[in-house]
Amino acid sequence: MINKLSETKAFGGRQMRFEHESNTLNCTMQFSVFLPPQAANAKVPALYWLSGLTCTDENFSSKAGAQRVAAELGIALIIPDTSPRGEGVPDDSDGAYDFGLGAGFYVNATQQPWAKHYHMYDYIVKELPELVEQSLPLTSARSISGHSMGGHGALVMALRNKGMYRCVSAFAPICHPTQCPWGHKAFSGYLGDDRDDWQAYDATELLLKHRTAPPMLVSQGEADNFLAEQLRPDDLGQAIAQTGIEATLERHEGYDHSYYFIASFIEQHLHFHAKYLK
Amino acid sequence: MINKLSETKAFGGRQMRFEHESNTLNCTMQFSVFLPPQAANAKVPALYWLSGLTCTDENFSSKAGAQRVAAELGIALIIPDTSPRGEGVPDDSDGAYDFGLGAGFYVNATQQPWAKHYHMYDYIVKELPELVEQSLPLTSARSISGHSMGGHGALVMALRNKGMYRCVSAFAPICHPTQCPWGHKAFSGYLGDDRDDWQAYDATELLLKHRTAPPMLVSQGEADNFLAEQLRPDDLGQAIAQTGIEATLERHEGYDHSYYFIASFIEQHLHFHAKYLK
Repeated sequence: MINKLSETKAFGGRQMRFEHESNTLNCTMQFSVFLPPQAANAKVPALYWLSGLTCTDENFSSKAGAQRVAAELGIALIIPDTSPRGEGVPDDSDGAYDFGLGAGFYVNATQQPWAKHYHMYDYIVKELPELVEQSLPLTSARSISGHSMGGHGALVMALRNKGMYRCVSAFAPICHPTQCPWGHKAFSGYLGDDRDDWQAYDATELLLKHRTAPPMLVSQGEADNFLAEQLRPDDLGQAIAQTGIEATLERHEGYDHSYYFIASFIEQHLHFHAKYLK
Repeated sequence: MINKLSETKAFGGRQMRFEHESNTLNCTMQFSVFLPPQAANAKVPALYWLSGLTCTDENFSSKAGAQRVAAELGIALIIPDTSPRGEGVPDDSDGAYDFGLGAGFYVNATQQPWAKHYHMYDYIVKELPELVEQSLPLTSARSISGHSMGGHGALVMALRNKGMYRCVSAFAPICHPTQCPWGHKAFSGYLGDDRDDWQAYDATELLLKHRTAPPMLVSQGEADNFLAEQLRPDDLGQAIAQTGIEATLERHEGYDHSYYFIASFIEQHLHFHAKYLK
């Protein structure tokens, strides 16, 4: 059961926000949806967008300019929040931006006190698609994309769930989280100290292990402050080269980690998704 | 003298934020600028964007998606804040959203304690264009647009300063502020109780008085909660009809007062501006 919180028209389509009780996350969750004009008359395919650290479902909705292109291409946008929310959901004791609320890292936490709520992996790959495909005019054609922590999430979902997503793209993803400070902090907190358990949430390691992936497009800005220490696109690039999968890894001079970068290349990404969603 | 606070690449151009000491407003002001790629090699015309209540220079920058089209058309975007700011600048005693900080209403205040800082009219029409035309690769071809309170500001600037702006447009402007609650509150506070002094900041009254205007495009959403009570586009429409000026007033079914409305029609508005800026 989803409850519509708001709706307005955008680019001839419907920009909406919903609330529901999540059984996976044990809390009330909100998410945003854009339905293109084509959804008035027929079911449409869906692109899932996973946002980055500190974001909610509203950042991509308001800043990326994706609705314009999604309306042209007839693609729905499904935009979840980045962590469980609400009273009773534990947060980082220091209120850090990179752990706890707004920083679910798209994993299923096994450690206390996180294990009760922080199951963003199952939420994204199971509960949310079942919910929206029951409630909204969507086909079962899905693809996935995201930014930074959400780029990591999108790559992991696509690499681990063969057949679930027609293709995957990412903006400035955390490519090798087992080898960067953000990943160390999140994985040790949510998953514990056994690094074998971390591999299942690391795109570079998953690709090297499975050696297969849906079509992949990754865009990275060269002026991104997090590039070398946190994002490590070269590591993913080497794994792509070693495995020979169908993938494009683009570098863009002058672009940083912000939504201005996403807005500048979202049209290209949506056309990439449309090619596989049709 | 302007001091650059930040810069990033967007759509091949430069999205920047500046700070300066404003002599007009007696405080430090910030504003945003987008320079299209064409500005790397030649001076470009400028569209001034005036934002609405509660906004800063960053709302339009991050939410409207204007840079994509401005980059195609070779137009700079100059995006000021909506009021004086900083310690020492008085705010509404109740912290209301529609008066004081974030709500300068683009007037020159004559009443205390507002008269020292709240001179947004002079700031927009004199100080800011002089400053940016000295500092940035801009021609003297200018146009102006805005949203809600900023739509009111844009129309007033264009109607009172013949030759200053090649054209004007507005999204959901406060068309007749002497006849609506927002206008009553702002004008009585900033200008005092003599309603004759209010006429100089009322687009509908100015048009009826001067009976001339630069080419004008006004867009209004039919699902805008403020439409009837605050915005009164019919009043402006009647003045347009009476004076026979070159103007288009469009109504769009289903669109509300949000940036989703602006984003949906900013491309149309920018093409309108480009026609007169070239």
